Amino acid sequence: MTTSPDSLSTPEQNFYGPCSRKIHIDGRLHPIRVAMREIELSKPYSFNGQTFTSLPLYDTSGPYSDPAAEIDPEKGLPCLRDEWHDARPGTEPSQKSPHRPMNGRTPLRGAEGSSVTQMHAARNGVVTPEMEYVAIRENQHLEEWMETSGSVRPPVTAEFVRDEVARGRAIIPANINHPELEPMIIGKNFRVKINANIGNSALGSSIDEEVEKAVWACRWGADTIMDLSTGSNIHQTREWILRNSPVPVGTVPIYQALEKVGGIAEELTWEIYRDTLIEQAEQGVDYFTIHAGVLQEYLPAATERMTGIVSRGGSIMAKWCKAHNRENFLYSRFDEICEILTAYDIAISIGDGLRPGSIADANDEAQFGELKTLGELTLRAWEQDVQVMIEGPGHVPMNLVAENMTKQQEYCHEAPFYTLGPLVTDIGAGYDHVNSAIGGTLLASLGCAMLCYVTPKEHLGLPNKDDVREGVIVHKLAAHAADLARHHPAAWLHDNIMSAARYSFAWDDQFNLSLDPARARKWREESSPEAGDKLNEERFCSMCGPDFCSMKKSREAAETRQK
Amino acid sequence: MTTSPDSLSTPEQNFYGPCSRKIHIDGRLHPIRVAMREIELSKPYSFNGQTFTSLPLYDTSGPYSDPAAEIDPEKGLPCLRDEWHDARPGTEPSQKSPHRPMNGRTPLRGAEGSSVTQMHAARNGVVTPEMEYVAIRENQHLEEWMETSGSVRPPVTAEFVRDEVARGRAIIPANINHPELEPMIIGKNFRVKINANIGNSALGSSIDEEVEKAVWACRWGADTIMDLSTGSNIHQTREWILRNSPVPVGTVPIYQALEKVGGIAEELTWEIYRDTLIEQAEQGVDYFTIHAGVLQEYLPAATERMTGIVSRGGSIMAKWCKAHNRENFLYSRFDEICEILTAYDIAISIGDGLRPGSIADANDEAQFGELKTLGELTLRAWEQDVQVMIEGPGHVPMNLVAENMTKQQEYCHEAPFYTLGPLVTDIGAGYDHVNSAIGGTLLASLGCAMLCYVTPKEHLGLPNKDDVREGVIVHKLAAHAADLARHHPAAWLHDNIMSAARYSFAWDDQFNLSLDPARARKWREESSPEAGDKLNEERFCSMCGPDFCSMKKSREAAETRQK
Repeated sequence: MTTSPDSLSTPEQNFYGPCSRKIHIDGRLHPIRVAMREIELSKPYSFNGQTFTSLPLYDTSGPYSDPAAEIDPEKGLPCLRDEWHDARPGTEPSQKSPHRPMNGRTPLRGAEGSSVTQMHAARNGVVTPEMEYVAIRENQHLEEWMETSGSVRPPVTAEFVRDEVARGRAIIPANINHPELEPMIIGKNFRVKINANIGNSALGSSIDEEVEKAVWACRWGADTIMDLSTGSNIHQTREWILRNSPVPVGTVPIYQALEKVGGIAEELTWEIYRDTLIEQAEQGVDYFTIHAGVLQEYLPAATERMTGIVSRGGSIMAKWCKAHNRENFLYSRFDEICEILTAYDIAISIGDGLRPGSIADANDEAQFGELKTLGELTLRAWEQDVQVMIEGPGHVPMNLVAENMTKQQEYCHEAPFYTLGPLVTDIGAGYDHVNSAIGGTLLASLGCAMLCYVTPKEHLGLPNKDDVREGVIVHKLAAHAADLARHHPAAWLHDNIMSAARYSFAWDDQFNLSLDPARARKWREESSPEAGDKLNEERFCSMCGPDFCSMKKSREAAETRQK
Repeated sequence: MTTSPDSLSTPEQNFYGPCSRKIHIDGRLHPIRVAMREIELSKPYSFNGQTFTSLPLYDTSGPYSDPAAEIDPEKGLPCLRDEWHDARPGTEPSQKSPHRPMNGRTPLRGAEGSSVTQMHAARNGVVTPEMEYVAIRENQHLEEWMETSGSVRPPVTAEFVRDEVARGRAIIPANINHPELEPMIIGKNFRVKINANIGNSALGSSIDEEVEKAVWACRWGADTIMDLSTGSNIHQTREWILRNSPVPVGTVPIYQALEKVGGIAEELTWEIYRDTLIEQAEQGVDYFTIHAGVLQEYLPAATERMTGIVSRGGSIMAKWCKAHNRENFLYSRFDEICEILTAYDIAISIGDGLRPGSIADANDEAQFGELKTLGELTLRAWEQDVQVMIEGPGHVPMNLVAENMTKQQEYCHEAPFYTLGPLVTDIGAGYDHVNSAIGGTLLASLGCAMLCYVTPKEHLGLPNKDDVREGVIVHKLAAHAADLARHHPAAWLHDNIMSAARYSFAWDDQFNLSLDPARARKWREESSPEAGDKLNEERFCSMCGPDFCSMKKSREAAETRQK
C-alpha cells in the first residue's frame, strides 16, 4: 500500500517533491526567520479578488528540507534559538548534573528567584521571540487573505499569542536547553497539531536509526514527537533525538525512573523521580507527561472497569499507591515538580492515567474524577507560571466524544486538550489509525488542540516506517479537517486551491497540494501508464475515463449555456 | 501494508479464519434459514449476568462461507428466495425482453394491476419472508441480551420491520428476479450498512474476475454492491455479478443508456432509458440510482460553484437539459419510471446529481434545492409503493455535516439516507478512504442508513483488490462505530467481548473478533516471532513489552488490593 521514498535524514532540494521550496519569513520584533514550505503553482488561482501563484504552507520538517542547511546527526542541528537570546537574563549554567550535551553547550537553568517560562513572560507583557515565531508560523503572513476571506477567527498576531499563553489557553513547549527547536504553539485558537510517538525500542539501534525515525515523522507532518524509549540506552537515545529534532520533544519520565529501579514499580521513590526530571530537563525535553491525577480515591472505580487502567504511567502509579497504601507522589510532590519545570520552561502534559481503554469504560466515574483533579493541578501549575496541557482519552463511542471536550474545558479552565484518538470502537485492530482519526477529527473540531497519532500497529506491535507515515498522515488529515471546521482561513485556502486545480485538471498542482504528494503522483501515474509525459494534460482520470468524467461534462454543460 | 489471503470465490471451511463457522437460524413464520457467522470463543465471557461462549455475527459473505454450499460461478448461487415463494401471487412471466438469465429462470414481473413491492405488502399488513429474514439477521436472536443490556432501541421484530418499511423509513432492496439474494434492510433503526462499488472496467475481464471482485467485497463486509461497469460487456458482466451475488446489486442505468448512444449525452431519449431500465429489471437489479432531481432551475447555481457538478449521472443530465433546453426526462417521466419499478420491486436510490465535490460547495443552494426535489419525488414514489432511499454528499466540512442529516430527514420524510462519505477535506488524495470514513461515521451516528465506500484510489485511479479490502473495512469500522453511538446492543456486545478478551490476554479471541482477523493475527505474529505457538499465552504485547504492559500492571494492582 505505501510507497517508500528514499531516506530523508539528509537535506535535499527535493525533500518535499517537485515545485516546493523552503522559504523564510523575517520577524519584525526579533531576529527570527520563520521557516515555511512554499508550493509553486502551475497557474494563478483567484478567490475573493486575490490571486495566488504560490501557496506557503506550515512546515514541520525543519532544516532537513533546507538545501542551505548543513546536516550532521553527530553534531545536531544549529542552535537556532540561542541566536535570538544572546544574553538570557535570569538564567545560569546548571551545576546540578554531569550532563554535557552533544551540542557542546552548558545546560542552563533559571537562576534562583527568576522564572524563565513563556507563561511568565506573557503574564509580564513580554512578547518573546518564540511568540513572534509561532504567530508568523500560524499564517499571520496571509493577512490579506485572512481579511478577504471574512474569517470569524481572531487574527493571529504576536500580541494575541502572548495573551493566549498568559491566560493558559495555549502553550509553547520550548525548554531553554532545546535551542535547536523551531517553536510551535498548542491551543484551541491555533492550528490543530499532531504528535508522533517514536523510539519505543532502544535496543541495538544507532544514532542514525533513531534520528531517522524522528525526522521521518516530522517530514510527514508531526508537530511534536514523544520519545517513549525504554531499555538501557534511554539517555543516549534521547540525546540524539533532542539534538536533531526541530520540533518539541516530550517524554514520560516515569518510564526512565522505572528502568532505574529494575522495572519494579513498588521501588520507585520521589528522589529517583526528581533526579530523572532534572536529568531530562538539562537535556532539553520540552514537555513531560506526568500522571499526577491518579489518586487512591479513584482506584476502586478503575478496578471495576472492563479494562482497568490502560495508561502505562497510570498503571505504574496505581501499583505504587496500592503497594505503599499512600497517595501518588506525583500528586503530593506536585509543587516541587513545578518548581523544577519553571527552571527550564518545561510544559507539563498532565497525563490521564485513568483514560478509558474500552468504549464500555468511556466517560466513567474514574475518568471524570481524575479530570477534575487535573483541573485542580492546572491551577497549581499556573500559580508557578508553568505551561499546562491536559491529556485525554482513549476509547470513546462517537455519541460520548463531545462530553469529553465540554468537561475538559470546564474542569481544566481552557488549558489545551491533547488526546489519543479517541478510538470510536474496540474492534479495529489493524485499522486503529483510522479509528483514532475518526474520533480525533470530531474532538478537534470541537476544540481539542493536539492529537496523538495512532498507527495501524496499535494493540498489535511496534510500528515500522510505513506505519509511522500512515499514522502521521491520517492524523494530519484529521487535524486539517478540524481546522476547516473551525474556519481557519489558511486551511480553507489550501482546499480551495486544490479543488480549483481539480476542476481545471491541473494534475501537478493536485499532487503538490496533497498531504502525500509522492503517493498521489505515483498512484495516478500507475493508473495511466500510457499517458507518460502527457499525464498533466489529461482532462479526465482513469476512475471514470474520458466519456464519464463528470467534471469534463460539467464544464461542457456550463459552456453550452454561455452560447 | 495489506496482506492478501488466497482467492475466496470458492467455499472453504476457513473462509473466515479459525474458530468461525456458518450457522443458520430458522424462521418462525416462513421457511427461511438466516445465515450468520458464529465465532467460538476460547473461554466464557459474562456481562449483566449473561454468559457467552460464542458470538453470532452479521454476515455478508453469503454461501461462499458455507462449506455445505456448492459454488459454480457458471451456474450462479442457489435460488434461495424462490423456495420461500413457491407460488408468487400477482406475478407473471415477463414477455417483454429476450433476456434469458443464467439461472434458467424466466424473468417475472408484477401482473397488471398487482404490486409486488415490499412496501405494498407492508402497507397491507403482510410480513413477507424477506421481512422476517432481516428481522432475524439484525440480531433478533439476541433477544435476551437485548433485554438485559437495557437498550433504548426499539426491538427488531418482523412486525417492526414491516412497520418501518410501510412508513418508508426503511427499504429491503430485493428484485423478484434476484432469487439468489439474502435479504437485508436499510434504515436508520437498523444496523448501518455499507456499499462497495465494483466492475468499473469491463474490458477484457472474465466471469471469474468479475465474480471474484463482488465476492471479495462481500467477504470483507459489503452489504450491497453497485455495478458501475461501463464499456461493451456491460449486460453480460451484470448477469455474472447478479447470479453470483448474495447481496443486493445496484446500478446507475443512465451509464448503460449512454453507452447505447455512443457516449453522447445529447442523444439520450426516454425510450432508450426506459428499455434499459426494463432490461436491467429483468436481470434482477435490486436498486437503481436515478438522478431525477437535477432540474434546470438548479443549474445556474451549480455553474457558479468551485467544482460544478461532480456526479457522473448529474453531469450527463445537466448536459442533456442544456442541449435540449428541456426539463430532465428522469423528472418529467418519474411516474412512468416508478411504474416499472413496482413491477419488479426495485428500490429507487434517488441520486444527488448536485452533490458538492469540494468543501467550498457544501450545503449550497444547488445541493439543498435538489434535496427538496428529492423529497417531492419520494412522496411520488411512495404513492406507487416504490421503496426509496436518498443519496447524499460528497465533500462536506465537519461543522456542516449534521445539517445534511437534519435537512434530509426533514425534506425527505425520513426516507433512508445513503451517502458517499462525506469527505471532510479536499486534500486527502491517497487517503480518501479515511477521509470518507471520518465524515461517514459522524453522519451515520446521526442517522445515515448506508455509507458508500471510498477506496484509497479515489480521485486517482481504479481500485485494486487491496484497495477494495481497505475501503470496505474502514467503512465497516465507520458503520460499526455509528451502531455503537446509536446504542445497538449487538454492536456493544461485540466490543465488550473484544475488550474483555484484551484485558485477559485472550489473543485468539481478539484476532477472531477483529474486523480483519487475518491482518490482526499476522501483525501480532510478526511482532513476536520468537513466541511461536506460545503466542496466545503471552500476557503482554510487543508494543509495551512485559515490564510496561499497563493491563498486566493494572491487574496486578487490582490483585494487590484484594490481599
